[in-house]
Amino acid sequence: MLTLYHGATSVCAAKVRITLAEKGKRKGADWDGPLLDLHKGDQFDPAYLKLNPNAVVPTLVDGDRVVIESTVINEYLDDIFPEPRLSPAEPYGRARMRLWTRQEESVHEEINTLTIALIFRPGELARPEAEREARLAKRPDPDKRAKWRELLDKGGESPLVDKALRRFVRLFAEMDRALAGGPWLLGDEYSLADIGMTAYIDRLGQLQFEGLWASFPRVGDWLARVRARPSFAEAVGAYTSAERLATMREAGAAAWPELAPKVAALLGERPATAAA
Amino acid sequence: MLTLYHGATSVCAAKVRITLAEKGKRKGADWDGPLLDLHKGDQFDPAYLKLNPNAVVPTLVDGDRVVIESTVINEYLDDIFPEPRLSPAEPYGRARMRLWTRQEESVHEEINTLTIALIFRPGELARPEAEREARLAKRPDPDKRAKWRELLDKGGESPLVDKALRRFVRLFAEMDRALAGGPWLLGDEYSLADIGMTAYIDRLGQLQFEGLWASFPRVGDWLARVRARPSFAEAVGAYTSAERLATMREAGAAAWPELAPKVAALLGERPATAAA
Repeated sequence: MLTLYHGATSVCAAKVRITLAEKGKRKGADWDGPLLDLHKGDQFDPAYLKLNPNAVVPTLVDGDRVVIESTVINEYLDDIFPEPRLSPAEPYGRARMRLWTRQEESVHEEINTLTIALIFRPGELARPEAEREARLAKRPDPDKRAKWRELLDKGGESPLVDKALRRFVRLFAEMDRALAGGPWLLGDEYSLADIGMTAYIDRLGQLQFEGLWASFPRVGDWLARVRARPSFAEAVGAYTSAERLATMREAGAAAWPELAPKVAALLGERPATAAA
Repeated sequence: MLTLYHGATSVCAAKVRITLAEKGKRKGADWDGPLLDLHKGDQFDPAYLKLNPNAVVPTLVDGDRVVIESTVINEYLDDIFPEPRLSPAEPYGRARMRLWTRQEESVHEEINTLTIALIFRPGELARPEAEREARLAKRPDPDKRAKWRELLDKGGESPLVDKALRRFVRLFAEMDRALAGGPWLLGDEYSLADIGMTAYIDRLGQLQFEGLWASFPRVGDWLARVRARPSFAEAVGAYTSAERLATMREAGAAAWPELAPKVAALLGERPATAAA
């Protein structure tokens, strides 16, 4: 049995659970593993750091083999469980797929930016300053700490938020063009490219940020399609409580008025794709 | 015949030329293609942007198939030319390889930071301010423009330079641990993992920044080994003039005194790997 160290709210863990579900691998039968509490800091446990020195989820353990990084894990799962294929059989198709999956890292970074600036910030600002500073000082990575400080200071006014919004608008324009060719990012074939984007765009959807793809309706249709697959309920829905969804909806609704004019300006700059 | 749009000074183009050379594919026989002048701005030519909307090299054209992004191109070449293999035959080896190749993007970003802050900056500061500003304003990507502005303003004092140095020290510590297991990053098997890092670390070597891996001697040994392969002379050496090497050496020598104390502090923070 495979062991997956994962987390309920981690988009990267969801990515791997979707792949397992699409491969027909069932929790409790084919794989199992601890759900880490990332808010409590389980990922910094010394035993876990031996498996994953980056202190993130997911980590896959297959016998004596430890695989980290969700994109790498997904290709590994596609290699060891060839059926059903989640990558094209021929080299050019695989190259097209990897052009999508290599974008996951920068998309992840920008989802993280919006999450800190819009969702975590109000709670942090509600703490006494000394406590907030002490929490910041405990973050081990100086670059991540600097990002937190910038986003706690400036929130939606930070240039990092503009950078994130530009990244999403560019992504959705590209997805919209690709989806002109079929229901999935590679056309007719559902693949790791779709899986890699599902949890990120679902997260933006949970925040009710659909305005980000208002000019790119194929993206909304695609999101409805990936959410309708049984793998979504099994790998994402089962880990998302109604309470959490309500919290996300509220946080998103509170944040959107600050974002909306920026997004409108970006969409104005970049017309929808010509091929409608 | 394959067409490769490349550049003499581009580390990403070098990455693909090394793979072609390792596969025994010869320029003029198996592949050919224009060397773009990136300083002149050939990459913004509308005809080229149709092939590569990111305005970067390399781009590989194989019949009617266009493949961009060096890491993706390298896996494509390994797929279409199976011999000699440049990736492990079994899934776990491929996962280990991809853990290295996925690092290329962030390593690239930090090489770019050092290049702007230490190599391009003196020339830009020598221009009249109005001309410098006009050149900045012409950069189409607002995030890259902001990075240029920060690095022209602050040079080696920018926190971005500290971030770059931290990234390299972390990389070299990880490489040093991996190279305890054999001559190449995966052990006994030379692979796309080594190819992906070669041009970046060679660039730091051209700048005489060997102090970055002073605590990790296996990295210097590895660099000597990749430079000794025939593919290096064919794919990198042939594109590097003695004049350019001299310029890099001088620029690096001028910049190093500012970096040295920062690097020493980082290496003091992070002892060399225990397994010597």
